[in-house]
Parts: sequence; C-alpha cells; structure tokens
Amino acid sequence: MIEEASTQNIDRRIQLAVEAFQFLKNTTINERAEFMNAVADQIEALGDELLTAAHSETSLPLARLTGEKARTAGQWRSYAKAVSAGIYTEARIDLSQPEKQKGDLRKYNVGIGPVVVFGASNFPFAFSTAGGDTASAIGAGCPVIIKAHPAHPQTSQIMADVITATVKAFGWPEGIFSHITGKSYEIGAYLIQHPDIQAVAFTGSFNGGKALFDIANRRDNPIPVFAEMGSINPVFALQYLLETKAEVLAKEYIASLTLGVGQFCTNPGVFIALKGKPLDRFINTLKVEIQNVAPAHMLHKGIFESFEKNKNTAIAQPNVELIASAHTETEGSYGNASVITTSASNFMNNPVLSEEVFGPFGIVVACETDEELRKIAQQLKGQLTITIAATNEDVRDNSKLINLLKDKCGRLLFNGMPTGVEVVYGMQHGGPFPSTTDSRFTSVGPDAVKRFVRPISFQNWPDEFLPEELKNSNPLQISRMVDGVRNSESLNIQTT
Amino acid sequence: MIEEASTQNIDRRIQLAVEAFQFLKNTTINERAEFMNAVADQIEALGDELLTAAHSETSLPLARLTGEKARTAGQWRSYAKAVSAGIYTEARIDLSQPEKQKGDLRKYNVGIGPVVVFGASNFPFAFSTAGGDTASAIGAGCPVIIKAHPAHPQTSQIMADVITATVKAFGWPEGIFSHITGKSYEIGAYLIQHPDIQAVAFTGSFNGGKALFDIANRRDNPIPVFAEMGSINPVFALQYLLETKAEVLAKEYIASLTLGVGQFCTNPGVFIALKGKPLDRFINTLKVEIQNVAPAHMLHKGIFESFEKNKNTAIAQPNVELIASAHTETEGSYGNASVITTSASNFMNNPVLSEEVFGPFGIVVACETDEELRKIAQQLKGQLTITIAATNEDVRDNSKLINLLKDKCGRLLFNGMPTGVEVVYGMQHGGPFPSTTDSRFTSVGPDAVKRFVRPISFQNWPDEFLPEELKNSNPLQISRMVDGVRNSESLNIQTT
Repeated sequence: MIEEASTQNIDRRIQLAVEAFQFLKNTTINERAEFMNAVADQIEALGDELLTAAHSETSLPLARLTGEKARTAGQWRSYAKAVSAGIYTEARIDLSQPEKQKGDLRKYNVGIGPVVVFGASNFPFAFSTAGGDTASAIGAGCPVIIKAHPAHPQTSQIMADVITATVKAFGWPEGIFSHITGKSYEIGAYLIQHPDIQAVAFTGSFNGGKALFDIANRRDNPIPVFAEMGSINPVFALQYLLETKAEVLAKEYIASLTLGVGQFCTNPGVFIALKGKPLDRFINTLKVEIQNVAPAHMLHKGIFESFEKNKNTAIAQPNVELIASAHTETEGSYGNASVITTSASNFMNNPVLSEEVFGPFGIVVACETDEELRKIAQQLKGQLTITIAATNEDVRDNSKLINLLKDKCGRLLFNGMPTGVEVVYGMQHGGPFPSTTDSRFTSVGPDAVKRFVRPISFQNWPDEFLPEELKNSNPLQISRMVDGVRNSESLNIQTT
Repeated sequence: MIEEASTQNIDRRIQLAVEAFQFLKNTTINERAEFMNAVADQIEALGDELLTAAHSETSLPLARLTGEKARTAGQWRSYAKAVSAGIYTEARIDLSQPEKQKGDLRKYNVGIGPVVVFGASNFPFAFSTAGGDTASAIGAGCPVIIKAHPAHPQTSQIMADVITATVKAFGWPEGIFSHITGKSYEIGAYLIQHPDIQAVAFTGSFNGGKALFDIANRRDNPIPVFAEMGSINPVFALQYLLETKAEVLAKEYIASLTLGVGQFCTNPGVFIALKGKPLDRFINTLKVEIQNVAPAHMLHKGIFESFEKNKNTAIAQPNVELIASAHTETEGSYGNASVITTSASNFMNNPVLSEEVFGPFGIVVACETDEELRKIAQQLKGQLTITIAATNEDVRDNSKLINLLKDKCGRLLFNGMPTGVEVVYGMQHGGPFPSTTDSRFTSVGPDAVKRFVRPISFQNWPDEFLPEELKNSNPLQISRMVDGVRNSESLNIQTT
C-alpha cells in the first residue's frame, strides 16, 4: 500500500527544497506567519475525512482526535504569532561607535536550511506531518521534507495535501514542503545523509532517534538533530502527601498511566515512595482502580507487540511482584494495563526496569529510606518530566532530593500528573539525554522554532541591503536590542 | 615542565565540579554577575608579571597583549551585565487559565552542568583560561574545568590563580573552577569522556575540534560541543569596487593577512575576483606591500612548522603561481608571508587549496566569469566570516551571489577586513560546519552564554519554592514573558 520513495525522487525533492530555501529565507516574519495561519485555517476546515482516516489508522477515539486536530491548528497559529512578533529573530544592533573597531554590527536569526521531519505514530496530527516540528521549521524559514509515519499513511497524505495546497495558493516554490513515504529504514537514513539537509527533528523511540543522531553526526558536515525519544517520567511521592492522599494519588496515577492506552511520551512509568502503610494503601487502591480501566486498542500491531514483549520482560525480572492487572482482552491489539512493584535496590541494580515500556505499564518502587530516594534520583537518566507529589512541608524536608531532580528533567511538576503538554512559552518538552538528544531545546511551544534558526551578523552593510528585521526604520516594528537596550523603535541614523 | 594531570586528580576535580554545580545553579544571576565583575577587577589588577609571561610564551607583542588583557576583563564585565539583566534567563510565565489543562507553567534557563573548556594558543587571555568560554559558562551557572593550553602554561596558571582566588574570596565551593595541565591528547579525551561533564567549548584546529566532537557524540550520554575550528574567510571583491580601489584593497588585504603573523581564526586566506586589469593592479600592489611587512615570530615552534609545511604544500600544487613573498628570515620561528594565485577551476578542483593555512598565507583566485564566482560560493564550506568588497552597485548586480554566501558564514562583511572581533551582542563568531560544530551559537559576545544553558519548566509550583527569576514578585526585576507579553512587572497573584 505505501509507496517506497525512490532515491531519484528524494534527490529531486531535496533539490527543490534547496531552491525553496533561497526564497524562504528572504520572506519576512510576517509573510511566514500569514502562510502558517493559512495552513491552520485549512486544517480546521478539514472535515470527517481526516478524522475517519486517522481513527481507522490509529484506533484513537474520535473525541481525542478532534481535540488533537484543534491543538494542531492552534500550534500553527501560536507559532505564527511568535514568529511575526520577531521573538525568534532576536535582532541585535550595535551601532558604530568611536571606540569600536568593527563599526556597525547587526545580527538576526535566519533559517538553518532544509529540515527533515520524522512523523510520530502516537500523535497523527500534533507530532506528525502537519505537526509542531513542521510548523516550527517553516516558521524559522526552513523548507520541510516529511518522512511520513507508515502507520497512518492516509492521514499523513491528507495533511500533506493541505500544506501543498497552501504553498500553491501563496504562489511559493513547491520545494517548501515535500512528503516522502516508505517503510524502510534506508529511506530515513538516505534523507539524513544527504549533504543539503541541514537539521533533523524526530519524535519516537530511543533506538530510532539515536540511530538518526549517529548518522547525522557521522556526516562529513554533521548537522543538529533534535530527537525526542521518550522517558519513564518518574513520580516521587513524598511522605506527608502520601499519608493524606494515598487513595487520590492512586486514582490519578492509574488515570494518567492508562490515558490513551499509555501511549504518551510523558506517561508516568515509575512511582517512587517510602515503603509503609501509606504506600500499601496506594497499592491497594491501584488494584481496584485498574479494574475500571476500559480496554482499548493500541495504535498499531507493532506497538502492541512491543508493549506485550517489554511488559512481560519486566514482569519476568527477579524480585518483582505483579500487583495490579486490568481485565485481560486476548483478541486484537488491546493494551492491558499492568503495574509491578520492586525494591529500590532491585530497581537500581536491574537496568531492564529503567527502560521505557511504551504503553500502560508502571513500576512502584518501594524505598527503605530517604537516602534511597536520593540514590535513585542520582542514578536516574534524563527525563522529559519528573513529578513531585508533595505538600509544601515535604518540599522543605526534601530540598536536596528536589535539587538533584532538577538536573534530570525538562519539566518538574508539583503534584498533578505528567501526561499531556500545553502549547505555551512556559512549556519545556525536552530533557537531558536520553529523553532528547539536546536538552537546550524544546519540541513543544513556540520556542520549538529556535531549533532551526542560526544567527548571521552583518558588518557595516548599507541599510538598503539589510533584511527588514535589521533596517534602521524597523519596518516590522519588532523588539530589538540596540546597543544592549531592548526597544521597538526606529533608528534615527543617516542612511549610508 | 608541564605537569601531566593524573586521572585521579581529574576525577577528583570533576567530583568537586559536580558538587559546586549544586551550589552554582542556586545562585541568582546577580550573584554570578558580582563574581564575574570581581574576576574582571582581578585581571585588570594583574601587572607586568602576566604580560611578561605571556610575551615570553607566545612571542605576541606587549601592545597586543595589553589590549587583549583589557578585552578579556571587558568580556567578563559585559557578560556579567547581560547575565544580571536576565537576558539568558529567558523567563517565560504562563499563568493558570480556565482553558488550559496544565495550570501554571514557568520556564527559565539553568546551567547545563560542568563544562570543559580548552584554551587556545593564539589568544592567551581572551580565548584561553580566563577567556570568553570560561566567563560565559560561569555566567550560565556552570562550573568550569580548564584544560590549559600547553603553549602558555605560566600565563594560564596566573589567570587560573585569579579565578581560584576570587572563588575563595566569595566563599564559594572550590569546584567552581579547576585548572588541568598536561600535553597529552589523552587528558583531553579523558575529560570529555567523563559522564559528569555536560558540555565542551574549544577553539583551535579542525582536527582537534572534530576529534573532541566525535568523542562527545560517542559517549553513552552525548553532550554538546561548541568547537570553533577556524576557516579561510574568503573575500569576494566585486568589479566596480576593484576597478576603483584595487590598490587600497591590496594594502588592506596584506595588512589583514599578516596581522598578528596571520594567526587569527578570521584571517582572510582567500581573495576571489574576476580576472583582468583591476585584479592585475591588485596583485602588483600586493607584491610591493608584502615587502613592507615586518617579520615576526609565530606563537610557538609547532605552529611555525605547520605553517611552513602547509604553505609549501599549497605552493607546490599544480597550476598555482607564487606572486608575492615577504623577506625571508631563515632563523627562528618567523612566519614569512606568501601569496599565490590560481584559476577558479583549479581552486574548485583541488581541495588542498581550500584548507586553512594558519598563518600569513593567501590565495588570489582569478575567475573567468560571474558564473564562476557563484560556483565557488556554492561549493564553499562553512566559514566564520565572508567579506564582500563592493560598491552598492556591485551588491545590486550580484544579489544571487550574496544570497548564496549568506548560507556559508556567521558574519558577512561589507568592505573592511575580517580579522578581529568585537565583543558585542551583534557579533556572531560561529558559522556553518566546518568553521564550528554548531552554527546556532556564538563564542564571542554575551550571547556566548546561551551555549551552556538549558530550559527547565516548573508546573504548578508554590511561589516560595520557585527560583527568584520566576517568583510572582519578580524580585530581580528582570524582563519576563508573561502570557506571551514581555514585561518587567511583578505579578499580582495570590500566593499558593
């Protein structure tokens, strides 16, 4: 069913992207924002055809897909707003001064060049063909070549058609957006190895992301890769809170663990607390609550099979106990939730238990002492999120633990559960390795644009040849840093 | 003479850095700025001992070293000012709203962790032990482990003592700064392979920088490396300007090519123009001007020997002609300037001619057509700088060429010569590979701090536990983006 793109076709699309980049890098931030808003309009205008295709390809419920569609259009709009406000332009102007040797220096951010985006399977809209990576790359001024996720080809094609139609409607070069299909690993590798590709964005598994990262770094000209590779998103439940809210916490935990059949990068795969009566109450409630989880299909057969395999591997480890299991549906790709428990020392000594199991599977780690909580924190690999379930008193008593945990994640929650993200400036979706390949960037929120820009400095250029963003008259009326002071003013300078 | 640091000593210093990071990441931007200004004071207070040591170790003239010392102190001050203004804090606050799922999200930048800095030989102050990399890492909140450059050990020790004394005077943990000495390649490799090191900064040769980059990416947890590896900084001289100013341009070019015995990353190694009478006049002036260059010693014997070898290799290539040579000093490490010429097609077909020759050596490339100028532009590798020697008329006639060149550099000059940098926001010292390993960052100017920060987002944290930068009252009075709008106000919110 899925056509394998030929290398000739890929080469041709990359050549078109190279040509389109010459066009795109000379568009203003307002022109790109207008384009992005038009894409948002078109996504919103899509009807049942999109939802029906996505539902049949991913098994995700229509309500969830309806919400994700709105979020996806919203991403294009919010990134467009940030782009047109010049936030990622970061214009800096240092005027000529008698004591300066170099004269007039003006810097702003331009697109880095053609970007390859790998669609994810678990968010067929928001992290796929017309998702946040595509929106942020185009916002940055970079042509995008999508490697469509083979698990939802029809959905991907509908979204690709929307972007292609918008490119056509704007009269822009067709190379601004390309849609590459295929199932083979080689297609992705070929794309990334092409010398004209300048950056890569990926959301998916560790193995997939790390393979792309390695290929990109082995090129003759290495390029940046932002790979979001998931994590186990630990929840540290501290004692005062656990004592008073063990049952509530158990309900919240099971709801988060099984949301969307556990198919979130931010799924809370590990729950860590001191052993004792409160934790026993938490576990007892888990056992009951897990029975109320409605069975649901996973995204596709491959994910279901991996889930079953990884879950059963974890359950089969020595010194773990299966404490809660959902009703078992034996036919079809149902992701049946399970929770196991183990000791802190077993958790720390058996690396299998720190591997992400993509799906509704959790581990409750029972610690003997506060010291063991801190040891786990110290040993923890990088995470997208860490949650502290705590009272204010708990935070005061555990400052060392919390200080350690800050080094291990991109988003630190005070209570609540980590599943889901919010598309705002304050969101960070990117943590220390191995949760992502570069913790200095985010793939959610307008700041995602930053991944695909680089600064260029113009020294002593005549005003007429400067980009709009740096001209004396500040025609785009953006906020700029002029001689170290931020303002949105035009410069009263005699034009050279 | 130079002590080889033992692995035990390195391990101990890294452990101290890890501990110091826990302290440093909880300092405020004002506390770090105060520290940085104190280092600047101490550098300025250093007397003849520093200049004498550096002069004897590098052969650089005292006047140059005096200027570099002032610049180095100035870097600490200007980065401190930017840090305390909260520019790299990038505080973003998204308040809780009824339509938001995640509640209150507040993001700011923290230090990435312990950073290893490799000192450069050609700027013993500004790009070495107490140079811009160290200042920007500490400004970001990261402890620094310096691998001292073995070519100026005494200079490095004096600068290290200044920073160590300031750490002591502030009562800060000693692990904030470490000074590792040694000549072996293994010491650098060992440092970068250590799992607790979180980032690397380097200024030097392509081979050195690329080796560090590869080691860092092969770690179990890869880390970012910012390596500035130099470039050939082409000058494109366009026709109208060349016709009217061939002689002036030749004088400027020789002065820039031989400044500091050509030992600048921004040395203009290639001069590209259309062949014809104006270029002949340029070459004739070169031949005369080069005779006026006073002979001077290179930084050290290793650099001199490399220069001689690489220069002679280039001169020995087929179809090149030696057009200008300085007086030959045969004794000592004198860097005698030479310029060769060749055709565009020979330049493009012989990769040896695109290699950086570190020292006063230039190539004049004579093009047959405008098309050849563009072909060279297209084929050019990434550069720190590209210079367009042009009139406004030339720029209008060559828009395609100039558009192409924008993709190939970090700093684009309109006339003037590229040697030297200015420590301001508008400076970009970082270009596409292979000039640096990540064109998205700069190693000169306050923006250099960005290399060593990463964002962390706090979700629904009580105000009392938030860092000062994100508290409702905005005690540091920094500019923050609140619900997408930039302001420096305090938030009128009931404290949880």
